[in-house]
Amino acid sequence: MRACVLHSAEDLRVEERSDLALTGDEVRIRFGAGGICGSDLHYYFEGRVGDFEVREPLILGHEMAGEVVEVGPGASALRVGQRVAENPSHPCRECRFCRGGAENLCANMRFLGSASVSPHVQGAFQDVFVTRERQCVVLPPEMDYGIAAFGEPLAVSVHAVNRAGPLLGKHVLIAGCGPIGALILLVARRAGAASVTMTDVADGQLEAVRRLGADETVNVSRDSSGLGRFRENKGRFDVALEASGAVSAIEACIECTRPGGRVVQVGMLPPGTVPVPVNKVMAKEVDFVGTFRFHHEFDTAIEYLIKGLIDVAPLLSGRFHVSEVDRAFRTAAERNGTMKVQIVF
Amino acid sequence: MRACVLHSAEDLRVEERSDLALTGDEVRIRFGAGGICGSDLHYYFEGRVGDFEVREPLILGHEMAGEVVEVGPGASALRVGQRVAENPSHPCRECRFCRGGAENLCANMRFLGSASVSPHVQGAFQDVFVTRERQCVVLPPEMDYGIAAFGEPLAVSVHAVNRAGPLLGKHVLIAGCGPIGALILLVARRAGAASVTMTDVADGQLEAVRRLGADETVNVSRDSSGLGRFRENKGRFDVALEASGAVSAIEACIECTRPGGRVVQVGMLPPGTVPVPVNKVMAKEVDFVGTFRFHHEFDTAIEYLIKGLIDVAPLLSGRFHVSEVDRAFRTAAERNGTMKVQIVF
Amino acid sequence: MRACVLHSAEDLRVEERSDLALTGDEVRIRFGAGGICGSDLHYYFEGRVGDFEVREPLILGHEMAGEVVEVGPGASALRVGQRVAENPSHPCRECRFCRGGAENLCANMRFLGSASVSPHVQGAFQDVFVTRERQCVVLPPEMDYGIAAFGEPLAVSVHAVNRAGPLLGKHVLIAGCGPIGALILLVARRAGAASVTMTDVADGQLEAVRRLGADETVNVSRDSSGLGRFRENKGRFDVALEASGAVSAIEACIECTRPGGRVVQVGMLPPGTVPVPVNKVMAKEVDFVGTFRFHHEFDTAIEYLIKGLIDVAPLLSGRFHVSEVDRAFRTAAERNGTMKVQIVF
Amino acid sequence: MRACVLHSAEDLRVEERSDLALTGDEVRIRFGAGGICGSDLHYYFEGRVGDFEVREPLILGHEMAGEVVEVGPGASALRVGQRVAENPSHPCRECRFCRGGAENLCANMRFLGSASVSPHVQGAFQDVFVTRERQCVVLPPEMDYGIAAFGEPLAVSVHAVNRAGPLLGKHVLIAGCGPIGALILLVARRAGAASVTMTDVADGQLEAVRRLGADETVNVSRDSSGLGRFRENKGRFDVALEASGAVSAIEACIECTRPGGRVVQVGMLPPGTVPVPVNKVMAKEVDFVGTFRFHHEFDTAIEYLIKGLIDVAPLLSGRFHVSEVDRAFRTAAERNGTMKVQIVF
Repeated sequence: MRACVLHSAEDLRVEERSDLALTGDEVRIRFGAGGICGSDLHYYFEGRVGDFEVREPLILGHEMAGEVVEVGPGASALRVGQRVAENPSHPCRECRFCRGGAENLCANMRFLGSASVSPHVQGAFQDVFVTRERQCVVLPPEMDYGIAAFGEPLAVSVHAVNRAGPLLGKHVLIAGCGPIGALILLVARRAGAASVTMTDVADGQLEAVRRLGADETVNVSRDSSGLGRFRENKGRFDVALEASGAVSAIEACIECTRPGGRVVQVGMLPPGTVPVPVNKVMAKEVDFVGTFRFHHEFDTAIEYLIKGLIDVAPLLSGRFHVSEVDRAFRTAAERNGTMKVQIVF
Repeated sequence: MRACVLHSAEDLRVEERSDLALTGDEVRIRFGAGGICGSDLHYYFEGRVGDFEVREPLILGHEMAGEVVEVGPGASALRVGQRVAENPSHPCRECRFCRGGAENLCANMRFLGSASVSPHVQGAFQDVFVTRERQCVVLPPEMDYGIAAFGEPLAVSVHAVNRAGPLLGKHVLIAGCGPIGALILLVARRAGAASVTMTDVADGQLEAVRRLGADETVNVSRDSSGLGRFRENKGRFDVALEASGAVSAIEACIECTRPGGRVVQVGMLPPGTVPVPVNKVMAKEVDFVGTFRFHHEFDTAIEYLIKGLIDVAPLLSGRFHVSEVDRAFRTAAERNGTMKVQIVF
Repeated sequence: MRACVLHSAEDLRVEERSDLALTGDEVRIRFGAGGICGSDLHYYFEGRVGDFEVREPLILGHEMAGEVVEVGPGASALRVGQRVAENPSHPCRECRFCRGGAENLCANMRFLGSASVSPHVQGAFQDVFVTRERQCVVLPPEMDYGIAAFGEPLAVSVHAVNRAGPLLGKHVLIAGCGPIGALILLVARRAGAASVTMTDVADGQLEAVRRLGADETVNVSRDSSGLGRFRENKGRFDVALEASGAVSAIEACIECTRPGGRVVQVGMLPPGTVPVPVNKVMAKEVDFVGTFRFHHEFDTAIEYLIKGLIDVAPLLSGRFHVSEVDRAFRTAAERNGTMKVQIVF
Repeated sequence: MRACVLHSAEDLRVEERSDLALTGDEVRIRFGAGGICGSDLHYYFEGRVGDFEVREPLILGHEMAGEVVEVGPGASALRVGQRVAENPSHPCRECRFCRGGAENLCANMRFLGSASVSPHVQGAFQDVFVTRERQCVVLPPEMDYGIAAFGEPLAVSVHAVNRAGPLLGKHVLIAGCGPIGALILLVARRAGAASVTMTDVADGQLEAVRRLGADETVNVSRDSSGLGRFRENKGRFDVALEASGAVSAIEACIECTRPGGRVVQVGMLPPGTVPVPVNKVMAKEVDFVGTFRFHHEFDTAIEYLIKGLIDVAPLLSGRFHVSEVDRAFRTAAERNGTMKVQIVF
């Protein structure tokens, strides 16, 4: 089989690997489509994501859907020919966090395509991919792999919105118009937000989210006072989701959120500390909370996609054959309105 | 009547003022005992608290209990001779925050003895003090005024613990062993914390909270690695309450709190920003939340004091006659184990 | 002015009343459109709703939108010519429930068109209606009164869904396909429900909600085993909302809700007790909770209507001139797919 | 080894069984002390608990502490000689409820000494008992087995209080003064309840809980109007816990709980339905919620017992040698102030 293996920054190779025999409840999946995530971009361009450095060859990829082509001796739920989406989150189910209902915080998590542990957990960008049966969510027979491969980033976004609390009637600010910000927009609307305001520094991204239904957008690079009126009366938004990973956005989110409101940190920040107006957190009794990956939201995301309750098709900006994988990564990094870029084998 | 009037930093005068006739539901209270709060100390020594600067003479004081000596024409619930504790929080009951059940976040709050608005809201350090009947909570006939005057800081502490969520069986860290940290210790224990660990930079304060029941104390100035073992495995505490106002304590609280845990910012910080490990807030899904003053917790605090469910007597470090008010403030600022200092007229 | 006055069961008269001069912040509203609610039907046909009996002439009506035609001397926010929706909930803002953020549970509530107190609180079915300025929510200049008059039942439905907790990805059962059940369907979808199943005993109502987007419907009169498969594995729904007021529906809702799920009682039941499978509530740890009227959800409802985030137009089954008010009430009571019936003057 | 085997109602025999060799992470525990639970009494006197009938010989017992006397080949955490408390809750950790953090609602639960599944899950009343290592919580070397055997009922009570929500400053009603009611009293006090009122029909039980710290008691059999004043103003308690299993207590709990309050069903009721004032649940927006067994609260309970934060010693009404096991069960069923009865081998 072939795999997209990152050796170091900007050194991504499509390599032949030998197929392994299936054991237990393993199944073999033929790659249908797979999306490039922000963390994949960090690995590709910088050889690291935050504290996690690529120290050995790493197969990238954790957004994938495909077809079952072989089932292991212990697999009982899947059969050859079914279409499935891979849930890349493999928690231990034994640690206190798993047992407390927070598998996304698992102390022994193995997340596909990640350098967070050594040896690294290899990812899903392989033409045939071996996984455990229980990681697969069955899709309808004709479902488009490209849509289904949105399951993972959509799950991240549903989890972020769950962390934001009920949005019915709420006025929401989303900082950052990348794919995750855009998906959070769709989920926030699905969750009943009364309005969604979005910020970014790139006009192309802002224009893209307006087309997706953002009520209002502000270019915070050009229009430094753009958020000014939202700071009035100690803040106008009920909820803010920081999905840009830009340090300055944290302060803006806290300033623009009303007393008693909630700010959700979605974006990954540099290791160490960043400046935060903690006196505002205190005096306004803001809940400043983190969100990390997802749990049962993967199933919700796939269900939304199957039922068409969330329409991600407009976010698919490009699809590249694996032979053009470098071009795919470079395209995904553009900020001219580009949202999700996927690869196929 | 006489009042403790702050003119500027370290210029606190006991002045004669003329008595006003009562109107409506006003009542006149003869001062029984009143506590000096951390914000009073900031006003006294620096002429300001955070952003709030003393720009005109300000009568200090918002922790007070006394005796009803006169009732206004519209007062119907109180009668002369009753002992009462003054609730210094005067919200508008009309703004969206009041109507949403968060009177402590009232957009039009008038809090006694505060320079947060102009003209300032005059405080309660007066030998006879006029207030609205509805601000008074009735005490039993023989109740000690010194105990009752703990109602306000205890209410702040109960509210902080309410913001921390249910503590039954939880392992709790409290940063800061001043009067509020010490009261939070008592409330956390009352709320069922399985253990309470406390930090400070002053041995006297740490010794004082050990006597009050802290399970463990760490001097973070001397023993910089003192909290080290609590950082293991991404943090050991379920809940941390930052009650020191020290910038470095915020990072320690977040580092030492387990994934999915909760950090409550109680202490007042300088205006502007301070460094926060936001990547940890995100990746550990910590809830970093503020707490500010109190609402119905004032009633709870007084009820606890009346029933003896919380024993604050060991926190009363000194009581001074108003003629020695400067000495009272200087004593209150000591960190040799001093907790609450009160004044009497 | 003219008003729809109920004297006793089925004795509803359109009577002339003299206009009152405005005082304080009162405003005079010319009736635009008003909806007939289930409680109005109870009053009309039975002369009572639950424990509340009509003991004196009662002007009905608490769903109304209209135009400001006069403003009182103390009114400052409204001006003549504006369109407004009337919020019929007049809480005291002083009792412990109001101060706790639950104005809908106000101990001194005055709700329009209600016999719950003596003397009764007169309602809004008047050609010109006097109310307090703060009860009015301003509408856009051209907004249809018929749509705006859905504000109240929509607020009830939004509040019910708020009581149901976050619905993102949840599978929802709604018992009862009257106007409230139908509006809850729309709100549950708006709130992100993954599926909505509805039950009723009338095919016409079931057909109507299917057109509104219910995923599945069950006629529980004909198909007594219709819900059978939902009882499997201790229940399949995450959340059930009982909006029929039928005693048998309570058991069905509890049986069909999964362990750890939530059942919301929306429908009004007879006074006294009804049979409930409490052992299931206990062993499945179901949260069986009540919902009553609304609070800030009135503003949310109007905002949804203004923005078109919820489309209530298909629910408007008929509009009658006040001269045909009896026919309006009889039509509203039909269960052949009839949803909301409104009257105009 | 010897075991207490129930063959049918009132046919409990101490029988010899052969010892099994340990496999995997199993460990062998020598019985220290074990408590008789209400469900054990139902099995003993009626041969059933609710829907669960004893259809084959059943070893009773799920409250037990003892000493490790042998460890299996795969056990790594325990060693011979340690004292441990057995956690009788064996969830699957794979079903959706386990994975959602609600192991107590596990779809495949195996709970010790229970006839809920076939074949039955055998219990812990054996002189040596085999269990999995992970079910054991280590105790300090000298800890009294009788105290440690309270871990299970205390865990039930802590979970019930967790279901009641934060109790800081709350006024609490507990219906039923059996061992669970009494333990809930201790936990509610530990959790910060401002007052606890308790009801029962037996004076002996009421006297016992007064000694344990109940603020007020009402004999609801003799004094039918005893709760009358608590029904005023729609109810006076913030929270009620129904721990009697008496049908009439449910109505009383709901009637006496204030609008917006919470009622927790702890007691087991007959299968089928019982009368509930659902209109009150609706109009007062009461949360009527169930509580069932426990999850991580077992660890909390043991920690409380080890640290002495809850003192259960006054609840130990009697300890019988297994040779007098019938007398033990008859004593446990008395309602003259008897709380927990334990057996030893």
